[in-house]
Amino acid sequence: MLNTSIHYENGRLFCDGVAVAEIAAQVGTPAYIYSGTRFLSNLRRIQAAFPTAHIHYSAKANGNLAIMKMLVNAGAGIDAVSAGEIHRALIAGAQPENIVFAGVGKTGQELYYALSRGVGWFNIENVEECRLLNSMAGAAQMVARVALRLNPDVAANTHRHIATGHGKAKFGMSTETIRDLLTRQGEFSNLSFEGIHIHIGSQLHDTTATQAAIRAALDVIQPYPTMRTVDIGGGLPVAYSADEIVPDVEAFAASILPLLEGYEVILEPGRAIIADAGMLITRVQYIKEQGEAKFAIVDAGMTELIRPALYEAHHEIVPLVEQGLPRESVQVVGPVCETTDVLGRDVALPPLAAGDCLAVLTAGAYGMVMASNYNARPRPPEVLVDPNGKSWYLVRRRETWDDLVAPELA
Amino acid sequence: MLNTSIHYENGRLFCDGVAVAEIAAQVGTPAYIYSGTRFLSNLRRIQAAFPTAHIHYSAKANGNLAIMKMLVNAGAGIDAVSAGEIHRALIAGAQPENIVFAGVGKTGQELYYALSRGVGWFNIENVEECRLLNSMAGAAQMVARVALRLNPDVAANTHRHIATGHGKAKFGMSTETIRDLLTRQGEFSNLSFEGIHIHIGSQLHDTTATQAAIRAALDVIQPYPTMRTVDIGGGLPVAYSADEIVPDVEAFAASILPLLEGYEVILEPGRAIIADAGMLITRVQYIKEQGEAKFAIVDAGMTELIRPALYEAHHEIVPLVEQGLPRESVQVVGPVCETTDVLGRDVALPPLAAGDCLAVLTAGAYGMVMASNYNARPRPPEVLVDPNGKSWYLVRRRETWDDLVAPELA
Repeated sequence: MLNTSIHYENGRLFCDGVAVAEIAAQVGTPAYIYSGTRFLSNLRRIQAAFPTAHIHYSAKANGNLAIMKMLVNAGAGIDAVSAGEIHRALIAGAQPENIVFAGVGKTGQELYYALSRGVGWFNIENVEECRLLNSMAGAAQMVARVALRLNPDVAANTHRHIATGHGKAKFGMSTETIRDLLTRQGEFSNLSFEGIHIHIGSQLHDTTATQAAIRAALDVIQPYPTMRTVDIGGGLPVAYSADEIVPDVEAFAASILPLLEGYEVILEPGRAIIADAGMLITRVQYIKEQGEAKFAIVDAGMTELIRPALYEAHHEIVPLVEQGLPRESVQVVGPVCETTDVLGRDVALPPLAAGDCLAVLTAGAYGMVMASNYNARPRPPEVLVDPNGKSWYLVRRRETWDDLVAPELA
Repeated sequence: MLNTSIHYENGRLFCDGVAVAEIAAQVGTPAYIYSGTRFLSNLRRIQAAFPTAHIHYSAKANGNLAIMKMLVNAGAGIDAVSAGEIHRALIAGAQPENIVFAGVGKTGQELYYALSRGVGWFNIENVEECRLLNSMAGAAQMVARVALRLNPDVAANTHRHIATGHGKAKFGMSTETIRDLLTRQGEFSNLSFEGIHIHIGSQLHDTTATQAAIRAALDVIQPYPTMRTVDIGGGLPVAYSADEIVPDVEAFAASILPLLEGYEVILEPGRAIIADAGMLITRVQYIKEQGEAKFAIVDAGMTELIRPALYEAHHEIVPLVEQGLPRESVQVVGPVCETTDVLGRDVALPPLAAGDCLAVLTAGAYGMVMASNYNARPRPPEVLVDPNGKSWYLVRRRETWDDLVAPELA
């Protein structure tokens, strides 16, 4: 799971031109490190594969301001799922018209904020939301541009926790509901119905379900000439282990774009841009041999990266120093008082001692954004290795104990 | 799952003498509400069942300062699993000698902090930690009092995610390792070996495994007259639904205390004190009917309460207003963009409309402490209903969007 940015040089792990051990020494562990070079090149590759589409970076994957700012400067719009994410996008310099506001449970306050800031698109999840947004836009004497989210009732080839397009999921509206809304557009005089939105899940391992969803979407909107935009959501897959074969973005584009000729296309990648640009570094605190197992107890766990505990997700774990020594099987476990706090089971690693550092790879997406303060643990800092490949800087400082209690003492 | 504190009066949900709707109106939703009366009476009941034991409240269940302060004033010590929790305990007024420092991956920094503050007990998880603490205590010219954590290799009758006492878990040391350490006490001149610690899991549904663990522990320490303290951990179970039968604390005590005669006993309850004293209130944003399902999309989800997503945990969900209307089956889903963000499946609720409030019960433990800012969602406030049963106040304010980005702009 190494790549052109996260790689070894003479047996030392580098993030572009910077030795990861140097960062660990200066900012401590645990810490997230991101390669600016890598996430910008991931964005450019998607832009090239979808040359006429609008690429909206999905802020929920990683909302760090410095990362968003660079992506926005490189031409990305933003896909936001809450007003908090819109707030982040605006600080990062996104133009409001280049923000899509999705989200299954937008509150009235959030809709008001988005309207007042001139957000470009509202992806509508249900009929009540349609009515609410119409009346709020009316009160503000505005017309809001909307895309209707279709639940195409297709089963995506992915983990059940992240499949969103089947009929029993909470997302979107049925074809019947959307057809009905479209025949009654006149009742919503402060909404401009211009798009349809489908997002059938993350980590799609083939495009069959996406193609089916697109066909269903086009079938619904075909009679309505103002419905010219298809937001195909995210779902571009990322490989988390060396033996995981996923279709590349060019293949994904090739199988989908022919269906969408004549339409404006919005794409909302998050993981595909930031996952493999990030790593979580952690330091071994103790080695413990018990029964037949060897445990490396490290200073990061489910508080920093919950994906293994929550999704049984796999992340490769590698040493910062690779000297070609024989590997042994190690249980890499976190410090949190939960059995489920295991970062990696049966990881093949060289001999380890307390003080050694490890890197948990492909951790740029759904890592820091899901971190918690469980066990009163301050959240880790985030470091960005500049796209120049040489300099690096903190883009989020480490939390302190005082940060944790501040809202209780105010 | 109602109780003497969280109950209906004339069809309205109350927390002691305060209508929950009043709190919701003033602080907004989502919000956590705790009954001071209830958690103090839970503590008193445990104190009565274990009259000579030292009761250490497990801060990881809910570390709110106001709650900890009241429990400390009522005679509880604190069980801390990180230096951050020790920091909280000290702010809450705990005496350092009444703090137990447990935790599988204590860092050197954390051990130093705990030593310098005079923490009463160190529960040792592995041999390397024993060496490290001894040398740090030596450098500080101190003697640290330790309990050795035994992994008794018993399988507790509980969920695999929260079983901690089996041989393959990361916790504690084998009987062989502990016997070996005890024969070599002379090598650790700055440690005073006085106790043994067992914690075999949470939500123990019978005491068979605990009894076996205690017998194993006593067998190990019997030859050593200074080993006079047995820390039996936590694990007192809490019922999360009406049909869940759990042994009460008196039965738990009756089956265990006879084994422990002649020893000092430490008990570390967390959930049993705070779980049923807390609720999470949330407001319905939208009602959506889809297929045969009815969804209530509410403004709380896995960001506020991750237990359903992480452990498939069940929480009862009740309306704030109960008028005896016929019930229907509702999917109570959160606003987070994840399929797994479901607070309750097939919940029997009266007819609901947007704006109605619901209470998620038994949410006092492992609720707020595990909350995250995923989807850029500010964490909710916490409200305490005073033990006088009449007044209530914010004991943690709601986070703001600015709080979320503050560490990135510093």
